[in-house]
Amino acid sequence: MPASETLVPTEILPSLIRDAWWRPENPERVTEVLDASTGELVTRISTDGIDVAGAVEHARTYGQQSLGEMTIHQRALRLKEIAQHLDAHKEELYELSDKTGATRKDHLIDVDGGIGTLRVFSSKGRKELPNANVIVDGEVEQLSRDGSFLGEHIYTRLTGVAVQINAFNFPVWGMLEKFAPSFIAGVPSLVKPATQTAYVAQACVRLMLDSGLLPEGSLQLIAGSARDLLDHLDHRDHLAFTGSATTAQLLRSHPQVQNEGVRFTAETDSLNAAILGPDAAPGTEEFDAFIRSVTLEMTAKAGQKCTAVRRTIVPSEHVDAVVAALGERLESRAVLGDPRDEGTTMGALASKDQQAEVAKAVRILVDSGGTVRVGGEASGTGSADAKAGAFYPATVLSFADARTPEVHSVEAFGPVTSVLGYADVDDAVELAALGGGSLVATVCTHDPQIAVDFARGIGSHHGRVLFLDRDDAKTSTGHGSPLPHLVHGGPGRAGGGEELGGVRAVKHYMQRTAVQGSPDLLTGVTGIWHRGAQANTATPVTVAEGTAVHPFRKSLAELRIGDQFASDLRLVTLEDILAFAESTGDTFYAHTDEEAAMANPFFPRRVAHGYLLVSWAAGLFVEPAPGPVLANTGLDNLSFQVPVTYDDSIRVTLTAKQITARETDDYGEVRWDTVLHNQRDEVVATYDVLTRVAKAWPPQG
Amino acid sequence: MPASETLVPTEILPSLIRDAWWRPENPERVTEVLDASTGELVTRISTDGIDVAGAVEHARTYGQQSLGEMTIHQRALRLKEIAQHLDAHKEELYELSDKTGATRKDHLIDVDGGIGTLRVFSSKGRKELPNANVIVDGEVEQLSRDGSFLGEHIYTRLTGVAVQINAFNFPVWGMLEKFAPSFIAGVPSLVKPATQTAYVAQACVRLMLDSGLLPEGSLQLIAGSARDLLDHLDHRDHLAFTGSATTAQLLRSHPQVQNEGVRFTAETDSLNAAILGPDAAPGTEEFDAFIRSVTLEMTAKAGQKCTAVRRTIVPSEHVDAVVAALGERLESRAVLGDPRDEGTTMGALASKDQQAEVAKAVRILVDSGGTVRVGGEASGTGSADAKAGAFYPATVLSFADARTPEVHSVEAFGPVTSVLGYADVDDAVELAALGGGSLVATVCTHDPQIAVDFARGIGSHHGRVLFLDRDDAKTSTGHGSPLPHLVHGGPGRAGGGEELGGVRAVKHYMQRTAVQGSPDLLTGVTGIWHRGAQANTATPVTVAEGTAVHPFRKSLAELRIGDQFASDLRLVTLEDILAFAESTGDTFYAHTDEEAAMANPFFPRRVAHGYLLVSWAAGLFVEPAPGPVLANTGLDNLSFQVPVTYDDSIRVTLTAKQITARETDDYGEVRWDTVLHNQRDEVVATYDVLTRVAKAWPPQG
Repeated sequence: MPASETLVPTEILPSLIRDAWWRPENPERVTEVLDASTGELVTRISTDGIDVAGAVEHARTYGQQSLGEMTIHQRALRLKEIAQHLDAHKEELYELSDKTGATRKDHLIDVDGGIGTLRVFSSKGRKELPNANVIVDGEVEQLSRDGSFLGEHIYTRLTGVAVQINAFNFPVWGMLEKFAPSFIAGVPSLVKPATQTAYVAQACVRLMLDSGLLPEGSLQLIAGSARDLLDHLDHRDHLAFTGSATTAQLLRSHPQVQNEGVRFTAETDSLNAAILGPDAAPGTEEFDAFIRSVTLEMTAKAGQKCTAVRRTIVPSEHVDAVVAALGERLESRAVLGDPRDEGTTMGALASKDQQAEVAKAVRILVDSGGTVRVGGEASGTGSADAKAGAFYPATVLSFADARTPEVHSVEAFGPVTSVLGYADVDDAVELAALGGGSLVATVCTHDPQIAVDFARGIGSHHGRVLFLDRDDAKTSTGHGSPLPHLVHGGPGRAGGGEELGGVRAVKHYMQRTAVQGSPDLLTGVTGIWHRGAQANTATPVTVAEGTAVHPFRKSLAELRIGDQFASDLRLVTLEDILAFAESTGDTFYAHTDEEAAMANPFFPRRVAHGYLLVSWAAGLFVEPAPGPVLANTGLDNLSFQVPVTYDDSIRVTLTAKQITARETDDYGEVRWDTVLHNQRDEVVATYDVLTRVAKAWPPQG
Repeated sequence: MPASETLVPTEILPSLIRDAWWRPENPERVTEVLDASTGELVTRISTDGIDVAGAVEHARTYGQQSLGEMTIHQRALRLKEIAQHLDAHKEELYELSDKTGATRKDHLIDVDGGIGTLRVFSSKGRKELPNANVIVDGEVEQLSRDGSFLGEHIYTRLTGVAVQINAFNFPVWGMLEKFAPSFIAGVPSLVKPATQTAYVAQACVRLMLDSGLLPEGSLQLIAGSARDLLDHLDHRDHLAFTGSATTAQLLRSHPQVQNEGVRFTAETDSLNAAILGPDAAPGTEEFDAFIRSVTLEMTAKAGQKCTAVRRTIVPSEHVDAVVAALGERLESRAVLGDPRDEGTTMGALASKDQQAEVAKAVRILVDSGGTVRVGGEASGTGSADAKAGAFYPATVLSFADARTPEVHSVEAFGPVTSVLGYADVDDAVELAALGGGSLVATVCTHDPQIAVDFARGIGSHHGRVLFLDRDDAKTSTGHGSPLPHLVHGGPGRAGGGEELGGVRAVKHYMQRTAVQGSPDLLTGVTGIWHRGAQANTATPVTVAEGTAVHPFRKSLAELRIGDQFASDLRLVTLEDILAFAESTGDTFYAHTDEEAAMANPFFPRRVAHGYLLVSWAAGLFVEPAPGPVLANTGLDNLSFQVPVTYDDSIRVTLTAKQITARETDDYGEVRWDTVLHNQRDEVVATYDVLTRVAKAWPPQG
């Protein structure tokens, strides 16, 4: 690694373009980035003369190609390896992050949170998505009576580049939470971090590149202004923005987004609320948990989180108690200082500019009728060096009029919250909605009915709602923490976008397309066998003759979708039914009492147990001797459609439907389409049998 | 019904505002709408002085309230009743539609297609969604090790109004395909039809209103200009547009959409392609099907369909054959005339303005290098009255240079297609993509590998892809027909929106929100029991004592989620396993051969069949005597987690998880969470048991 790619304050921070580090030679426009606590120079930023069009083209060609040569599982596995590499080198990221004003506790959110996000996506990608490049969405729709014309939905990856314009507060997590799903989808990323903390993002990208794990063109970095990047995007591309509502509006109104179909998603800071339920009065466990939560959201990252609690909405009679409890707890939880100094519990804001912005917002809130109850600019910064660092004290305001417009629209992006009183649940719902759409709200209640009322009332205004009570106070991951498993984003003021949410996020980088066609063609397109498509059928006779191979005797190396076994008929007698009732204990009247069975609206007379049918089906399709099919791991979507009574016969047809080889094991999953017919060829039951099948048989190595 | 609400040409077409018909008294700005074939006055349009703000407010208050008092199933059922009413009165809609230039065949698409869409949504809403007001999305995520903190996703309805701005070509279908999903979601509609055919939409709304089936405020109509409607919308509202790309851009750039989070979706006409596969040469069944499909798309609605085939992309060597075949077939399929005249097979365009637009677009195509091969303005309109009516002949162009920019960007919104030659599949994929995103493409091939190549290549540029071959040529619903089951919309030029797609469309009118909390609170919020939440447990002892009631003895009137039955342990012996193998025929070695079982990587020694476990579980939880549980209809998500070997014991815990009462039957569906444990309290298997349960027991009436 050439020294110039590590951080030298006097040099320009390099960008990663077309898989090579780049920096301008004689830049004219240069921004100096300073240490948030000490004011010392950290790095210099400029992208004068950067070839953004070349970067877009590189992603669309080389990035698309290298990622397209891998399957979803291969890309997901790669994320885990990248996470391991970053984890081994994270101390370097911590040290750089110290300069941003963030505390070591804050680094856990950004650095470890980012690495953890890669891990969760890696795991979910392999568990919940196929090992393929097409994802099927939902069920097949039979569009013609005879089954020759079907419809269904597939996701295929976008053919362009995923551009990220990230916020300054989480230079690592903010990048990796977008990179992970686009990488799994197979779409290359082009990252533009915020200037103020770009050196942390650049270090993370450098570690990833040095790992040798990044496919060609899969990740590029613009360390500074993106110049005319947007002019080069079109409907093939994805643009994800995290930051202020104002910048989101600028991007959204760009002609390429407006007229050329660039897929745009925004996640903007919003006026998030924490609501104390009417039942959560002072003295309850809920009240204490609420105070802890609001305090934490004020102090973590010094309140510079788009999810932080800006509005603390509490029963009017508890406003003073809440203000007092917050003030008391903040005394020890908001000790300002350089994060590298002992005793510091809250760091600096990211820059002097941010400090000025927060101070300005608080002044607007005060001018509109707010009263500073805790902190405020005048309360000082304690022993922290107010001149060198961007410190701002933890501040609580209250408002006599909870409907003051400013408190629902002006955001102080720092350790600031406003306490508002409400009369009843309807009133609290209205106050929450005045935020015009938020990322997250906490509702603190132990009463399920109050939870229901809030869910219905505020749900559609929020991307996430956390219900806090005594049961989850200790185990909750917290109001402010977006999780890779759950969607992040919110309507209206929050930007109207959606990120994360497990594999939902992978699909954000893909197009959902309805496909229509014959069973054979849709089998080809999806890689999943459809009923009615061609099959390669073995029967008891052809297997015995040796003219066909039972599909259970094929390893993953030999098995193909459409490989099928069709059994003979087996007669079901009344004795069989009664014996099954006797041995299992399932003596339900429909199986044992002729008269009662006939009185049931769905049965002609005594019928076979559904469990008898599926057990017998296994007896009809099984290959007893050891072979590549290692285990039956489950069964899906079992639907009984026509009752089977005694003297009926059943037969089973089992077809290899979907084959998912594991990347890290010597076996994979095979899903078998299973249909039971009776002697009249009516469909009796349908389901999927799930098995584990060896990659080779006999096992190799 | 006052006479003034039916169509009197000299009167202003009335709007439906706040549940009452309204028309301006002395309008200044009036548009006259003429019969497309005869030029006679049909109606006059003006919304001078209309109270659009009042309409929005009425929807948000009364509309939201009346729809909110119903469940999803109740609203879905109401759609079916509305469909029945419209079906009984559709002749009136046909007669009015004649005036638009559409033929009776075209009316089947618009009127019957619209009514059919209501029916499909009614059926899907009741089959695929819960009978509730919250829809759960995906699986529960366990977010703490001890299970006290969970996360999942819910959909709740938007709290505003669903505004529709519709196109002139499908005044009935275009309205109902948007109304149906928003109605099921519980969001009131405010419809603004295109002026040119607003009288057909108005008649449909009048029929719906007169049916008495519309809840208060659930549907309003602005018959003419929407004035400043958009100024009154915010993040609570949904704006859906169908029409030209130009108008879509105007709406998308409106400040309320840009800055206030109005949810906007557009479906715009695009340069859709039909692609003849390299295998589908003249003489094949595919070639003939292709010619039939392109001809149909040119002539249906005189080509005024946003899905019509604008680009016919064929192997270069077959361009002339395709042009000739199209010309031949169009001779009988494109006989211009008044749709009320016998012998007419293609009607007029909607207006003289449209006719001029089409003629202008064809001139641009010719000027850019296109050659008119069939039809063209100069070819005349046959016996149709070219002076009175807006007739335009079916026209086929070809281009020497398939990459001529105009052919991929200029749309002649009439019976016009351009034939382009390609060299190979990659070339065809590139040509298709030059459209910049389309609603739909047809790929005509019988070769699954060619289908795969096209799916991967053009999938992400399209909302729908139809694979046409000999197997589905007769049963296909057609290139141009969006189906309620499948998504409609497309990226880029097609507007970037998504409509329809079955219950996916209902969710377009809802917000997806992540909810986090304890099992008890999430049970409350979702109405679905979560493992770890409180349960009301019966056991064999308490049932025998009479201190608890077995949940299988409770009808829907008595049963509550959380009602639970916990069985005793039952010992599994080797004899049991061998007997089960013997009776079912499932003699798989893992159950019968100790040595082979031990060699299997997943089993300690011989183990019980999974089917034995679920059969015995039924024996452990069943209540044999007749009761409210009528049938076991299926089983979902069965997962075997720990093997059960002989001398182990199992017990089952069964808990009412979700209760779905049917609106139209005296029973409903109950889903039971089912967990099998062994004697060490390890989870052996989990699944859902699906049953039908009577609403009352003994049955009433």
